[in-house]
Order: sequence, then C-alpha cells, then structure tokens
Amino acid sequence: MKVIVDLCVIPLGVGVSVSQYVVACEKIINEAGLVSRLHAYGTNIEGDWDAVMAAVKKCHEVVHEMGAPRISTTMRLGTRIDRDQGMQDKIDSVTSKMNG
Amino acid sequence: MKVIVDLCVIPLGVGVSVSQYVVACEKIINEAGLVSRLHAYGTNIEGDWDAVMAAVKKCHEVVHEMGAPRISTTMRLGTRIDRDQGMQDKIDSVTSKMNG
Amino acid sequence: MKVIVDLCVIPLGVGVSVSQYVVACEKIINEAGLVSRLHAYGTNIEGDWDAVMAAVKKCHEVVHEMGAPRISTTMRLGTRIDRDQGMQDKIDSVTSKMNG
Amino acid sequence: MKVIVDLCVIPLGVGVSVSQYVVACEKIINEAGLVSRLHAYGTNIEGDWDAVMAAVKKCHEVVHEMGAPRISTTMRLGTRIDRDQGMQDKIDSVTSKMNG
Repeated sequence: MKVIVDLCVIPLGVGVSVSQYVVACEKIINEAGLVSRLHAYGTNIEGDWDAVMAAVKKCHEVVHEMGAPRISTTMRLGTRIDRDQGMQDKIDSVTSKMNG
Repeated sequence: MKVIVDLCVIPLGVGVSVSQYVVACEKIINEAGLVSRLHAYGTNIEGDWDAVMAAVKKCHEVVHEMGAPRISTTMRLGTRIDRDQGMQDKIDSVTSKMNG
Repeated sequence: MKVIVDLCVIPLGVGVSVSQYVVACEKIINEAGLVSRLHAYGTNIEGDWDAVMAAVKKCHEVVHEMGAPRISTTMRLGTRIDRDQGMQDKIDSVTSKMNG
Repeated sequence: MKVIVDLCVIPLGVGVSVSQYVVACEKIINEAGLVSRLHAYGTNIEGDWDAVMAAVKKCHEVVHEMGAPRISTTMRLGTRIDRDQGMQDKIDSVTSKMNG
C-alpha cells in the first residue's frame, strides 16, 4: 500500500531551535530512499507504507538519542486505491486548474 | 518505544456519513488489545509503537476494503523517554491543576 | 457557522512539562462559555466559528504571556451544513453502532 | 500577532476528486494578499493572525457554497515572540544545515 505522508516532528524540552532535529529526520528519510520534499511546516514523503513508517519511527528514535526527552509529531496520511497518484500529481492537479 | 497516538481516519468518496468506518477502526484497535478512548474528533490510543502502527495500517486496509477509494488520516504521536506517562496521566496532570 | 474543533497547543522552549499551559487554555475555553471536553491529546470544542477562533487566539496570547517563546498548535476543524451535529452526537453515532 | 499556518481542507460528500475545492481556497488566500505556498498535502500561509484566520473561514464558507455538505480541515499554527521568522527562513534554517 502506497502512502503520501505529511510529517512534522516537534521535539520538546530542547529549547526553541529545532532545525537540527529536522535535519536529522531529513537525512533519515533521504537515506531510506524515499521521495520527499521539505516545506515550511513539515515534509511530504511518498512511498510504501511500511518503508515510510519505518522512517518515521527512526526519526523518533534518533531525535530522542540526540537528547530530546519528549516528541510530539503530527502526520497526515493519504492512501487511495482508485488510482496511482504521487506528490507531484497532487500539486499539478491544483496548479493546472489555477492557471486554467 | 511506547507511544500515545491521537488518530482520526477520514474516508473520502463515500458520502458524508463516516461513522461505520470509525466503528470498524474501533474494533480493530480493540481487537489489537490496545488501550484506547474515543472522543468527538478522533481516538486516543496507547501502546507499543509497532502494535499501534500495525493497527493504524489495518484501519486503512479495512476501510479501503469496505469501499472507500481514498482515505485522509491525521495523527498526533507522542513519545517520551524521561518518564512513563499514560493517557490518563496526561488528563490527570491537567485536571488536578484545574481544580487546584 | 458552527464548528467542532480539536485543539492541541504545544508550547516550545519551556521544558517538557506543559500541563500548566494546557490548564490556562482550558480556563480560556471555559470562560468563553464554549462546550468542551479534554482528552489525552487535545481538547474538543464546539461553538460558533468566531467564538471558538477567538478562544484559540487568546490561548496563543496567554501562553506567550506565560513565557513560552514559541507555540506549535494543531487543530482539526469540522463544519457541516447538511444537519446539526454536536460533539456528543458524533460519539453516539459511533458507540450506538459498536454495541449494535 | 504573526502566524505561519499549514492548512489542509478536506471536503466530504463530494467524491474523491477534491482539487477544485483546493483551487478555490488557493484563490481566496491569494486574493487576501497572504504569502502562501502549495505543497502536496496542504498549503503554507504566512501573515497576521486575523487575516489568515479570516481566509480560512472564507475557505469553509466557499467550499460549502460550492456544494460540499461537510468539511474536515487540519491546521498547524506556529507563533513565536522571540524573533521574526518567515516561511522561507524556516526552510533555510534546515537546508543550510543539510548542506553544511
């Protein structure tokens, strides 16, 4: 089952600057070979359900290892069985109608 | 790694009434032996990361099997390594201060 | 326009214990006369759109005043125009089918 | 109070294809003069709290007028008082460390 996820990992108890933890998560996602794109409030990830979820779990493990005692993550998870649709397809289906 | 999740599964393409799909997810969570509590906009679930995530995946699989061509789920996922805290502990830590 | 919201306010830069900030938000919601119910990963709130959003804004203002330099909130917002449905109706529509 | 929002509006009861509703929301956000950027699972919006929230409310109103009987939206809302930070600053703070 393919999934498109929007992931936002928030470490607590480590101050206001959290970018180093986001960087660590980006590396995990990239090393997993997943298609992803960072935005200003999270990261879009596309891939097989199990591979994506394994990466999310590793993000929590690594961010804890880096010193964050607590993490509060939010995710959106989209699956569909009617047709194959990637991240770029979703954006294109909107922008094509914006310009139309 | 223990996790407290807040899960909201939204099936698309099946009309406005989605309670039968929520019921199916509740049954999956209960049959997995996970501690959970339904609220008006989702379900709190507490348990081992892998067990909780397996239940979430099964929710997507079953809701698709029930006829939903598309699903958009949102989750909050909380982990902490500084101390053990369950769902009821989180509520108690607030309500004790409310009445104090 | 009536809305049912699920609100989770996460203050950053104030350590791992955030319950005092949740308490402050609960008081704001109660004082606004809104129907609400706390759960383990947020609070359900029901009411007029503008009244609910005014309370959410006040939560951010007060949590900043309490000393949190940064806040990351997540919300689900449900509106419907086909029929009137409250928080308890949503729960009942699920639980009645669970026991059926 | 400035806010960075990540908005995802999901209309229910209108089938699986929701891009026309996303397009309508993009137009509302643009016409409000807000800085925004579409991604594969939502839209980043930056601006004054009241202006952003007025646009979100208008999205619900317009999507209902377009025929959606029910809407389930998710939002992340970030505010900070320690320093001024825009959407691009957030991305830059990560990407600069990625390449470092």
